[in-house]
Amino acid sequence: MSDLKKIIEDNESQVRSYCRKFPVVFATAKNSTIYDEQGNAYVDFLAGCGALNYGHNNGEIKSEVIDYLLKDNISHAMDMYTVAKADFLKTFKEKILDPKGLAYKVMFCGSTGTNAVEAALKLARKNTKRSNVIAFMGAFHGMTLGSLALTTDRTSRDGAGVSLDNVTFIPYESGFHTKLDSLDYLETIIHDDHSGVEKPAAVFVETVQAEGGIYVASIEWLKRLEKICHDNDILLVVDDIQVGCSRTGTFFSFERAGLKPDMVTLSKSIGGYGFPMSLLLIREDLDIWKPAEHNGTFRGNQVAFVAAKKAIEFNVEHDISGETIRKGALVKEYVEKEILPMDSRISLRGIGLIWGIDFGKFDDPDLSHRIADRCFDKGLIIERAGRKDAVLKILPPLTIIEHELFKGLDIIRESIEEELDKNI
Amino acid sequence: MSDLKKIIEDNESQVRSYCRKFPVVFATAKNSTIYDEQGNAYVDFLAGCGALNYGHNNGEIKSEVIDYLLKDNISHAMDMYTVAKADFLKTFKEKILDPKGLAYKVMFCGSTGTNAVEAALKLARKNTKRSNVIAFMGAFHGMTLGSLALTTDRTSRDGAGVSLDNVTFIPYESGFHTKLDSLDYLETIIHDDHSGVEKPAAVFVETVQAEGGIYVASIEWLKRLEKICHDNDILLVVDDIQVGCSRTGTFFSFERAGLKPDMVTLSKSIGGYGFPMSLLLIREDLDIWKPAEHNGTFRGNQVAFVAAKKAIEFNVEHDISGETIRKGALVKEYVEKEILPMDSRISLRGIGLIWGIDFGKFDDPDLSHRIADRCFDKGLIIERAGRKDAVLKILPPLTIIEHELFKGLDIIRESIEEELDKNI
Amino acid sequence: MSDLKKIIEDNESQVRSYCRKFPVVFATAKNSTIYDEQGNAYVDFLAGCGALNYGHNNGEIKSEVIDYLLKDNISHAMDMYTVAKADFLKTFKEKILDPKGLAYKVMFCGSTGTNAVEAALKLARKNTKRSNVIAFMGAFHGMTLGSLALTTDRTSRDGAGVSLDNVTFIPYESGFHTKLDSLDYLETIIHDDHSGVEKPAAVFVETVQAEGGIYVASIEWLKRLEKICHDNDILLVVDDIQVGCSRTGTFFSFERAGLKPDMVTLSKSIGGYGFPMSLLLIREDLDIWKPAEHNGTFRGNQVAFVAAKKAIEFNVEHDISGETIRKGALVKEYVEKEILPMDSRISLRGIGLIWGIDFGKFDDPDLSHRIADRCFDKGLIIERAGRKDAVLKILPPLTIIEHELFKGLDIIRESIEEELDKNI
Amino acid sequence: MSDLKKIIEDNESQVRSYCRKFPVVFATAKNSTIYDEQGNAYVDFLAGCGALNYGHNNGEIKSEVIDYLLKDNISHAMDMYTVAKADFLKTFKEKILDPKGLAYKVMFCGSTGTNAVEAALKLARKNTKRSNVIAFMGAFHGMTLGSLALTTDRTSRDGAGVSLDNVTFIPYESGFHTKLDSLDYLETIIHDDHSGVEKPAAVFVETVQAEGGIYVASIEWLKRLEKICHDNDILLVVDDIQVGCSRTGTFFSFERAGLKPDMVTLSKSIGGYGFPMSLLLIREDLDIWKPAEHNGTFRGNQVAFVAAKKAIEFNVEHDISGETIRKGALVKEYVEKEILPMDSRISLRGIGLIWGIDFGKFDDPDLSHRIADRCFDKGLIIERAGRKDAVLKILPPLTIIEHELFKGLDIIRESIEEELDKNI
Repeated sequence: MSDLKKIIEDNESQVRSYCRKFPVVFATAKNSTIYDEQGNAYVDFLAGCGALNYGHNNGEIKSEVIDYLLKDNISHAMDMYTVAKADFLKTFKEKILDPKGLAYKVMFCGSTGTNAVEAALKLARKNTKRSNVIAFMGAFHGMTLGSLALTTDRTSRDGAGVSLDNVTFIPYESGFHTKLDSLDYLETIIHDDHSGVEKPAAVFVETVQAEGGIYVASIEWLKRLEKICHDNDILLVVDDIQVGCSRTGTFFSFERAGLKPDMVTLSKSIGGYGFPMSLLLIREDLDIWKPAEHNGTFRGNQVAFVAAKKAIEFNVEHDISGETIRKGALVKEYVEKEILPMDSRISLRGIGLIWGIDFGKFDDPDLSHRIADRCFDKGLIIERAGRKDAVLKILPPLTIIEHELFKGLDIIRESIEEELDKNI
Repeated sequence: MSDLKKIIEDNESQVRSYCRKFPVVFATAKNSTIYDEQGNAYVDFLAGCGALNYGHNNGEIKSEVIDYLLKDNISHAMDMYTVAKADFLKTFKEKILDPKGLAYKVMFCGSTGTNAVEAALKLARKNTKRSNVIAFMGAFHGMTLGSLALTTDRTSRDGAGVSLDNVTFIPYESGFHTKLDSLDYLETIIHDDHSGVEKPAAVFVETVQAEGGIYVASIEWLKRLEKICHDNDILLVVDDIQVGCSRTGTFFSFERAGLKPDMVTLSKSIGGYGFPMSLLLIREDLDIWKPAEHNGTFRGNQVAFVAAKKAIEFNVEHDISGETIRKGALVKEYVEKEILPMDSRISLRGIGLIWGIDFGKFDDPDLSHRIADRCFDKGLIIERAGRKDAVLKILPPLTIIEHELFKGLDIIRESIEEELDKNI
Repeated sequence: MSDLKKIIEDNESQVRSYCRKFPVVFATAKNSTIYDEQGNAYVDFLAGCGALNYGHNNGEIKSEVIDYLLKDNISHAMDMYTVAKADFLKTFKEKILDPKGLAYKVMFCGSTGTNAVEAALKLARKNTKRSNVIAFMGAFHGMTLGSLALTTDRTSRDGAGVSLDNVTFIPYESGFHTKLDSLDYLETIIHDDHSGVEKPAAVFVETVQAEGGIYVASIEWLKRLEKICHDNDILLVVDDIQVGCSRTGTFFSFERAGLKPDMVTLSKSIGGYGFPMSLLLIREDLDIWKPAEHNGTFRGNQVAFVAAKKAIEFNVEHDISGETIRKGALVKEYVEKEILPMDSRISLRGIGLIWGIDFGKFDDPDLSHRIADRCFDKGLIIERAGRKDAVLKILPPLTIIEHELFKGLDIIRESIEEELDKNI
Repeated sequence: MSDLKKIIEDNESQVRSYCRKFPVVFATAKNSTIYDEQGNAYVDFLAGCGALNYGHNNGEIKSEVIDYLLKDNISHAMDMYTVAKADFLKTFKEKILDPKGLAYKVMFCGSTGTNAVEAALKLARKNTKRSNVIAFMGAFHGMTLGSLALTTDRTSRDGAGVSLDNVTFIPYESGFHTKLDSLDYLETIIHDDHSGVEKPAAVFVETVQAEGGIYVASIEWLKRLEKICHDNDILLVVDDIQVGCSRTGTFFSFERAGLKPDMVTLSKSIGGYGFPMSLLLIREDLDIWKPAEHNGTFRGNQVAFVAAKKAIEFNVEHDISGETIRKGALVKEYVEKEILPMDSRISLRGIGLIWGIDFGKFDDPDLSHRIADRCFDKGLIIERAGRKDAVLKILPPLTIIEHELFKGLDIIRESIEEELDKNI
């Protein structure tokens, strides 16, 4: 075993997990390739779980960051006024919000996604004076106590050690409950005076359930969800932490449905370079916070603001959203042509550059696991998601070049092939 | 108004707060001095609320960071094995834990302090299968739902919008409840079969309540608290987020009392350069996490690991703890000689380089506010804390040079003088 | 206004409600007739909400009670051993439990139905070490904090003033959610590792939702519900407080489906004479209570035990269950023939001697209210239930004689007739 | 074993408890004497835990009850207007409330004490829109989920199976926390903006903690508690379920301190004859219930109203309060003269006819248990209370004749004597 690996295994908590799946020590990285300490290259179809949409160590962003650091610009400033914050806000407004006709107040949260969800929960409850919140089966919104209550996977919830209250789960559009129109259901429990379900402050929704197994909500469903919320004075909060920042082919994932959510959470790739950063976008009239009512030391990560500003410029200049759609089509075509025909039990779901190959119909709960392990052995970092972790999750940087993309897809194809053959 | 300031005021949420107290736009910074966009210099007695113990833009750390970035070392890696993580762990173990005889497993949390507290809560409850937790009146432990339940100030709690359960507060050693021996009280409620208080999983304690108004627990009290916990099979969790990293004159604040806490939370200055980073130190046998049972995208902020490693080396090489004690003595001497004599209602509390000048005995709730405003007008950034915000909080970088330290103290003295004269 | 009425209105809390619907002062009663202070007679189709299955002041029971009182037998004894308790237990076992092949331990609860539900909640959680519980939309289980969490009508829930936690509601078989197979749904949320719903300790079910609007679960549905519970190690608790004691045509309402619930709550008519009494029947191996772990002063209401024993004998000797089925058929026939033809928007649901005439399809939310008022004016006491109180609830004593039954039904028919004519 | 006893042991739940301490089958009773099935007589110093202040089978009340039953007056009427309810209200107002200058609305609750506490909780939260409630260490308020959260003994709380939230416990005046002025403490946590304790809706207090070990609050303490509540807009709720109805020498226990509580709970002896009944008295302007917002089938136990009316008349005519004081003085004198001198570790506390002989200072946790067993062997029914059940609780019917009272006291003396001798 590598000395470095041993140091980590001896000293880091058992809670570590990705390192168990990819048990080498990583050293450097560039765009969609990671290199271990021996210099072996791995194609990255995980992309920091969506935090690296612009690739590892994006050169344009790196220059800005290093330049900022070299000049001793302020690097940590809590929520004081700074040049870097003003520059980010201006760019975010002019390049993203204004062109889309969105008017939001921007809240800088403690620098993790879960913190933005916690802030949204507080603000939704404060505005409506209601405590219940609706979330969807399959959802993932974070691991701190408030956001964990909105998160559905059993292992995560069991870790709470206390009851997770004030949340009601309903089925998502698709997935395990196809016999049920989940929005009919939502309307019913809101209007039924004997549903037992308290009127919610808000509905929290991911337009694509990523951790839940790559389920893409339809435009009609999303539009109707927004209408139900508006008609009933319930806030609609879109959690765009994983699938925002162009992952689905538009900057915000909800643009394809023309939504105007009451609040939007952003994190992961908003920081541009993998730097911790987290935003809550707030409809202006809902911004009724008292000063410091929700705070946090790292809400003023200036270096992240610099990277974030440059990332937005990069995004727009290089039409990352368009690129995403184009490459997404390649993925879809490849899987449909090369992989789905292998076995009718394999299915594909996705949008933009987030795709799931679902092995849940096989009577072999470990199949996806073995396939992912084979992928890694062949030099591909890929994660699983969803019920019983049966879905192989394709989530490369949006900046991946075609050659690398196909290299990764080829590895997936071969790995499936080998596993299915072996199964015979 | 500055254009940049206007951009921020127009676009950032009302929740912003420090910028209201220091209403200029900051641009650059070096050690204990911050400069606004016009180039005006301010002495910084706030130090990122304890996140900048090594000063703004510490040169030694900066070099390492820039070097790391330039070489395209991996910057974001969740909880994969990396060279940067191994290097940090090795340094932390060899330079900090081992010499102090402390054996902890290190958990890398989502990169904010509140996330480490949330993790500690989960793990304490998981180990003991109990849900109640003891915290102290005056405590601040964070703003997400779990840690907020441990936080005492009313405004923060009111923001929750739901009940904050499974926590029992008892008085801290000193402060508002001097007539009560709070540890007698703790023992009583644990042993009384009619106390109504469920046996706790853990006691969460700050050895110095910082946000609560700079109350320093005595060594005897801390030792007895630890003994009560051990005797009753209750976990002792020291929250060292604000006063760890040498702030009190030892790396961990609990060293002066010789404690061996069951868990320790660290954040703020552990990241070295103001970079978001957060650790939970766990007694080895308590590390019963399942993989990924608590996770978070930014728990692998590699750039922070690099800065953190260098910060530890810097700390040890420059004997930051010793420097802190030395400078702390200067502060104490100055205030006792120059400020306390002004009015018998002024009092001083503190340790290391965290000191509070308390104006709570004046029948003038706005006095500390006006003094802090005067300080800022004279070029000093200083914050207030505690009940009714009556305590002026001296919290400079530990690397502040003497001349700057006295410059700040002089500004405080003059501001108090002017306010008290005016009061006459 | 009557002097007595004025005394009550001046002194009783605003919370009073039935008196608002039947605003006369009642004095005496016999079987299914109540007389007011002026001697006016009213047919009683409310029967103490199911507490008077054996009629008002049942002569056979009365004799036993008076005899017991006259002889100075002990009338209040908490949970001490008494002759009256032993006699009741013996009779209950020999006449009810044994013939049905049911083996339960009997727990005497504080003398209200809600207390038995609270006890069942505690015991279910204690046995399974789980906190979540499943209940059905439309359910009513009581008004104290634990049972209130299982109760669905919004007004009752809003009264709690705190969050009602640890309960998950799912649709009942019929009613508002006919498009959904609620047991498919139940199975899904139990098995889906991303449902967000904690595995429940128990499912609480009424085999007929009475307050919910007289919805009768089918035998198949009940059987399948029991199977799901058994297969998944979830306890099945039947709340038979309102529809037990022969109301549906068998002593326990679940007999028609051949269920063997893990626990059964009984109250209301178990006391025989309207005396407060409440039982929890417990599968023997689940009876893991510590002594006094759930207690209450009035769990030893001896006079109720005497009445309850005699009521059971009365029930068996007079074949009250058979009588109920026979009279229920008369009600069904009458309504189908005389009332349903009036308007296709009227519907009927029921079993045994609990029937609901549903006016919910009329676009006239006050219609059922006006009909009930007309009924009272004509000498019939009848209550409404269900969503928007749109269902007229026929709930006479099971001992009602046919002539009185038809008198009541005629009044209903006339009142509907008049209201519908008026509507034209 | 008696056949009847066997029937009970075979069929009743393990939760039964008093029968374990007094393992004979009781048959008849008169005033303060209970007879078992063999005709053996026992002096009753338990009095239905305070439900039998007027003795077993009080002749005057019995006549009224039997007369009421014989005439087929209505026996069960939920919350309809009835003659019996009006008569009770009139008598209660004219004989009790008016002479004491108390103006309350009377709420008839589900017929158990815990139900009145649940109603008070709801109404306090509804009026104040706050969720937290203060209760005292040592308190007992009931066993349903809401009132259980106010109850302090560990065994009872552990039965809940879920967290008991929204209650803050503080020490009672006396008992285990004598070093602390608990009302100073209360004021501090209300006013301290960093106490972590939410401002309470109400303080729930027993003026004498009965289950908690017979601690009698001083008049000064009670007056100051009331003042703190009033000054801070917090409701004061006196739980008079166990020590109301003249137990302490005045009808309401709080009269000695001249309190005017905002709400008062009554149950146990209010029903006169041991019949289940429960009241909540509400300051008129707080009576903001919506109709039926809190309800329950047995809130209209008419037979209890008849007994309750007669009991009040009996109370006033026979000056039961005065009798209580007189007999209480006899108990005090006897114990001080005959028992306390036996050993300095024995202490006595009490008022009216509720007294506790405390053996808690002996290093012998089973001593009180053995003494109570000896008492029973000698023909005395007596219960223990308080921490570790170390307190022998003297709680006879207030109507006990002197000869019986001394018979009971003699048995106690002898039993202690024998145990202490044996200890030598």
